[in-house]
Amino acid sequence: MAEVNAKGPPAEALIDIPLAPNKKAPKRRYRRIRSAPAADSDLGPHHQHDGSLPTNFEVILKKLHPSLRLVAIFLFVYLGVGTLCFYLVRHQIKGKKTNGVLDAVYFCIVTMTTVGYGDLVPTTPATKLLACAFVFTGMATVGLLLSKSADYLVERQEILLVKAIRGNQKANALAITQECETKRIKYKCLTVLVILLVLIIVGTTFLKVVEKLSFVDSFYCVCSTITTLGYGDVSFTTKGGRVFAIFWVLAGTVCVAQFFLYIAELSTEKRRKSLVKWVLNRQMTKLDLEAADFDGDGVVDAAEFVLFKLREVGKINQEDIKLVMEEFEHLDVDQTGTLSASDITLAQLPENGK
Amino acid sequence: MAEVNAKGPPAEALIDIPLAPNKKAPKRRYRRIRSAPAADSDLGPHHQHDGSLPTNFEVILKKLHPSLRLVAIFLFVYLGVGTLCFYLVRHQIKGKKTNGVLDAVYFCIVTMTTVGYGDLVPTTPATKLLACAFVFTGMATVGLLLSKSADYLVERQEILLVKAIRGNQKANALAITQECETKRIKYKCLTVLVILLVLIIVGTTFLKVVEKLSFVDSFYCVCSTITTLGYGDVSFTTKGGRVFAIFWVLAGTVCVAQFFLYIAELSTEKRRKSLVKWVLNRQMTKLDLEAADFDGDGVVDAAEFVLFKLREVGKINQEDIKLVMEEFEHLDVDQTGTLSASDITLAQLPENGK
Repeated sequence: MAEVNAKGPPAEALIDIPLAPNKKAPKRRYRRIRSAPAADSDLGPHHQHDGSLPTNFEVILKKLHPSLRLVAIFLFVYLGVGTLCFYLVRHQIKGKKTNGVLDAVYFCIVTMTTVGYGDLVPTTPATKLLACAFVFTGMATVGLLLSKSADYLVERQEILLVKAIRGNQKANALAITQECETKRIKYKCLTVLVILLVLIIVGTTFLKVVEKLSFVDSFYCVCSTITTLGYGDVSFTTKGGRVFAIFWVLAGTVCVAQFFLYIAELSTEKRRKSLVKWVLNRQMTKLDLEAADFDGDGVVDAAEFVLFKLREVGKINQEDIKLVMEEFEHLDVDQTGTLSASDITLAQLPENGK
Repeated sequence: MAEVNAKGPPAEALIDIPLAPNKKAPKRRYRRIRSAPAADSDLGPHHQHDGSLPTNFEVILKKLHPSLRLVAIFLFVYLGVGTLCFYLVRHQIKGKKTNGVLDAVYFCIVTMTTVGYGDLVPTTPATKLLACAFVFTGMATVGLLLSKSADYLVERQEILLVKAIRGNQKANALAITQECETKRIKYKCLTVLVILLVLIIVGTTFLKVVEKLSFVDSFYCVCSTITTLGYGDVSFTTKGGRVFAIFWVLAGTVCVAQFFLYIAELSTEKRRKSLVKWVLNRQMTKLDLEAADFDGDGVVDAAEFVLFKLREVGKINQEDIKLVMEEFEHLDVDQTGTLSASDITLAQLPENGK
């Protein structure tokens, strides 16, 4: 890689070095692949630990998912509006009541997470329709929270957990991001499971001590809540219980949902891996060879082979290739079928620019 | 493409021809890309309409997701075991009762979908723990149902809907699968929304007529059910109502969940598209050119360029490339850095075989 370094900053600076850095001597050819400045999806969108990441990479990351701050603001506004609405119509809600504002927040949380104990229920048509509107927007809000933001929070916990398990300094964010995808999802599953266990123990203890329920009833209420089942025969009825419920119900339901998402991801990843293995082990026929010959020169080079196999696995599709090829033909000013430094210079002259 | 046809069956036979077939004259070079036998992910895993698809393609499809039959069997077994269990402990469940077996199935459905009205609730510790066990496994079952199977059912409806809208024969399965990804998800959103509206109207009418609820209460019960909120102040209390509920509750909750999944998919797809656009429009630097030069021959050919850009977008990652490259190096027996027909023949000789 010496010649790359001589010409400019090393390409490695652009990413968190995806492959094991101890493999210094590449196997045979194509070593440059190990330092291509790709936005490696393995790294996950949140790993901006390295201050040297260029601005354009950060832009990619930002474009990929709604930010944690945005989700927090949305959640805050939603709960604010919800609480205000349900506080204003508090006389049209019947059930076990404690404090006006507290009950409004509690009702809002129980509704948005779709737990719906039924210990507080709207009585008039208008309030019922209001609750309908709030449950749909609430589901969307929780969905927004689950889309990457919960994942982000789990990832941060994951680093602590893996450190604790391994008990050494190797387990920093960088090392964890370098693990293969399947292993990473397994770590996340484990992390979210640990968080969930803590939430279950805390919830059960709280219900037993503060709400004075029996042990089985406490556990039953915990399960009924985090799964959003909410039969409502046991629920939070005291002031203290409802304050606790506001935070605990949201955390618990999001945690369970995230756990199921990880399990789904894990099974998809495993299936994908076995598919890749199957495709790779399938014997190449001469017909395949022809199909893989992207530029029609009669032989299949390494990049063509990778493209062919990844298309076969379904990892990339025709639409992706078409878009990129349009750009390639635009850049290949001298029409040689390859890009060289002179093409780049020519393509960026004003008369050829877009 | 004449020379391909002369040598053997056309590569097009392997797929549903991903690009517009009316474009007969390719723009400049690389025409073979239009007929590469890729398992184009755009086609979706279910489009086996064409009888000429080779067996290996079908195997790929089967490996990608659990089959509809498997999910149906799982659901059936789950409901069977659930009904039996809750029927046996029916005296430990209190609430509005109609018929022993019917109530057991109804309780099972209300629990597994996490609607949890609370019109039937377990009274003893053992039954409560049983319900806890059933809600978790029920969530997993619904998750399994959502993983591709619901998507498959929606896709089948989608074809009918698009046909109805366009009112011509063009809208067959093949034409729809050729649409770009964003459009396809939009169609699916629309389809699931139409199904959802039908379910809402049917549910509201049923509750009004059979359960004799007011219009607002009927609609409120429908919303409360399909979102799995289930306050339980209104629910299905008659025999007829519960028979209806068994089918309607499952369909409604799965439909809403699938709708939210499509919305999430749509927003991800849109963000991905804008990211692709941004990456493609970014000017190539000479450093990029070096990084993209996969085989280190000093120039970037079309396949190398596509690989580079797709890595930058995060569509493919280092791990994928590494796996495929191992296979390439195995196949490239003469170590020329390209695969030719002789390599294939050599690699498949017994002494080189795996």
